[in-house]
Amino acid sequence: MGEFDLLRRIRERLPPAGRQVVLGSGDDAAISVPGGATVTSVDALVDGVHFRREWSSPAQIGAKALAVALSDLAAMGAEAGEAYVVLGVPEDLDEDGCLALLDGMTRVAEETGTTLAGGDVTRAAALTLAVTVVGHADRPEDLVTRGGAQPGDALVATGELGGAAEGLRLLEEGKGGPSGLIARQLEPRPRLAEGNLLAKAGATAMIDISDGLGGDARHLAESSGVGLRIDAAALPLAKGVEDLTMAVSGGEDYELLAAIPLDRLGDIPATRIGEVVAGEGVEIRLPDGELLKATGFDQLG
Amino acid sequence: MGEFDLLRRIRERLPPAGRQVVLGSGDDAAISVPGGATVTSVDALVDGVHFRREWSSPAQIGAKALAVALSDLAAMGAEAGEAYVVLGVPEDLDEDGCLALLDGMTRVAEETGTTLAGGDVTRAAALTLAVTVVGHADRPEDLVTRGGAQPGDALVATGELGGAAEGLRLLEEGKGGPSGLIARQLEPRPRLAEGNLLAKAGATAMIDISDGLGGDARHLAESSGVGLRIDAAALPLAKGVEDLTMAVSGGEDYELLAAIPLDRLGDIPATRIGEVVAGEGVEIRLPDGELLKATGFDQLG
Repeated sequence: MGEFDLLRRIRERLPPAGRQVVLGSGDDAAISVPGGATVTSVDALVDGVHFRREWSSPAQIGAKALAVALSDLAAMGAEAGEAYVVLGVPEDLDEDGCLALLDGMTRVAEETGTTLAGGDVTRAAALTLAVTVVGHADRPEDLVTRGGAQPGDALVATGELGGAAEGLRLLEEGKGGPSGLIARQLEPRPRLAEGNLLAKAGATAMIDISDGLGGDARHLAESSGVGLRIDAAALPLAKGVEDLTMAVSGGEDYELLAAIPLDRLGDIPATRIGEVVAGEGVEIRLPDGELLKATGFDQLG
Repeated sequence: MGEFDLLRRIRERLPPAGRQVVLGSGDDAAISVPGGATVTSVDALVDGVHFRREWSSPAQIGAKALAVALSDLAAMGAEAGEAYVVLGVPEDLDEDGCLALLDGMTRVAEETGTTLAGGDVTRAAALTLAVTVVGHADRPEDLVTRGGAQPGDALVATGELGGAAEGLRLLEEGKGGPSGLIARQLEPRPRLAEGNLLAKAGATAMIDISDGLGGDARHLAESSGVGLRIDAAALPLAKGVEDLTMAVSGGEDYELLAAIPLDRLGDIPATRIGEVVAGEGVEIRLPDGELLKATGFDQLG
């Protein structure tokens, strides 16, 4: 398989480019005319670290790589724009496998209005994907960083928590189990619509829950220079998740955690789970009143 | 070594962000207000495929990864803007090695006015770098694609050719040899100033010579729907390169190949090496009159 042949076959399958893209894949670089503010994030997924090929189809891997990258745009309240994809291909993934992976990615691109605007293909020892995503907003001040939470704000989370970690546990035990939980692990979707609504509603700080609620709450607290109090009983657990630890420390839910003034809580697509306080640190209060010290995933990977 | 510790140490070493970057590394995504037209390209380098750690210091590897990515912006005539870096770290590269790699990258960033605006770090089986670069121009029409060459245009190349391939040969033979040639292989620099001048001078098509003159000429010819005639005797050979094959088929010089109208040839920083003709294909005429069929690197990688 030649690199250029594969790139040509990939380009033939790409949907048409979005309105901001003047020139898509196939030249030295893609050209766009963004206007307004641009947000950019990059995420890498490596076989054996972030996914396992024995658990995931190539299409699921491609879809997850783009979804995970787009989740960072959701956490800024941005609209999805373009994606640029590096594919590191091991010897045992053939051209059809690469194209299936791309098809999975294309499905998420179409669901989210993302243009696959460029990329690079190389050999690699293990299947590796690096996805750069670019999102858009009219103005920088329309975007929500991790750093603006104010004491007195409510703390909210979108969707349901713990499902991805419980799904991973089921996969690791080889048990099967509720397909919804395993789908949460293998087929995450970015909360772009929710992030946009939270931004418009006046969220003061936002982060996506990739490392686990505890760890990501700590990131938000540190960036904002505030403390967070989370009521574990209020956490929206995914169906089939019994263990609070899964919802607190389990990663990869790709839901959003946001701070928002109390008077803006009205119609947002999120559950109130706690509050922002003066000070520092994250306290998670269990139903029995015990305090859980929040820890997050802090390994390389 | 924790991922977050390394990321924090990396961020502490980063030079200040450029004027278009509103928010640099450390949040879910970087924010910029680009204005005008944006060009984006992504390149991956993998140990054993694109470089060898026994030949290159971490600083050289980091510098080359960014330089190679920026070369694509040079080939559009764009100004360098931002870079987003994925670092896949194998077990035998320690934190100091990662920081040395970043220092090499930072040096190229400073030389070229590029802001290192974000990134991701992960474990990997082999050292892997994926670099996304964003460049800028006032308007899309200020940028030069591969697709505009016209019959009658002159064909020009910047700098000197064959040096990187000859340097690679010396390294492979373990010979040492002229340090200039080895530096061409290990420490390429993007021709951003030359690309910008060629664009301003009216270049109709441009590409960077990464796969080898023959192969990249073919890409330009195909994109433009023209033929190219190259006079091998006119090729600007790097000092120490005797074999024309090195200049024709050897990759990684990262010089620029451009088509430009004859009346714009005046003050450009490039050597005239041939002409654009109607038709298709690339003909390289050797000094003895024999025609060389141009072949490029066409393997995965």
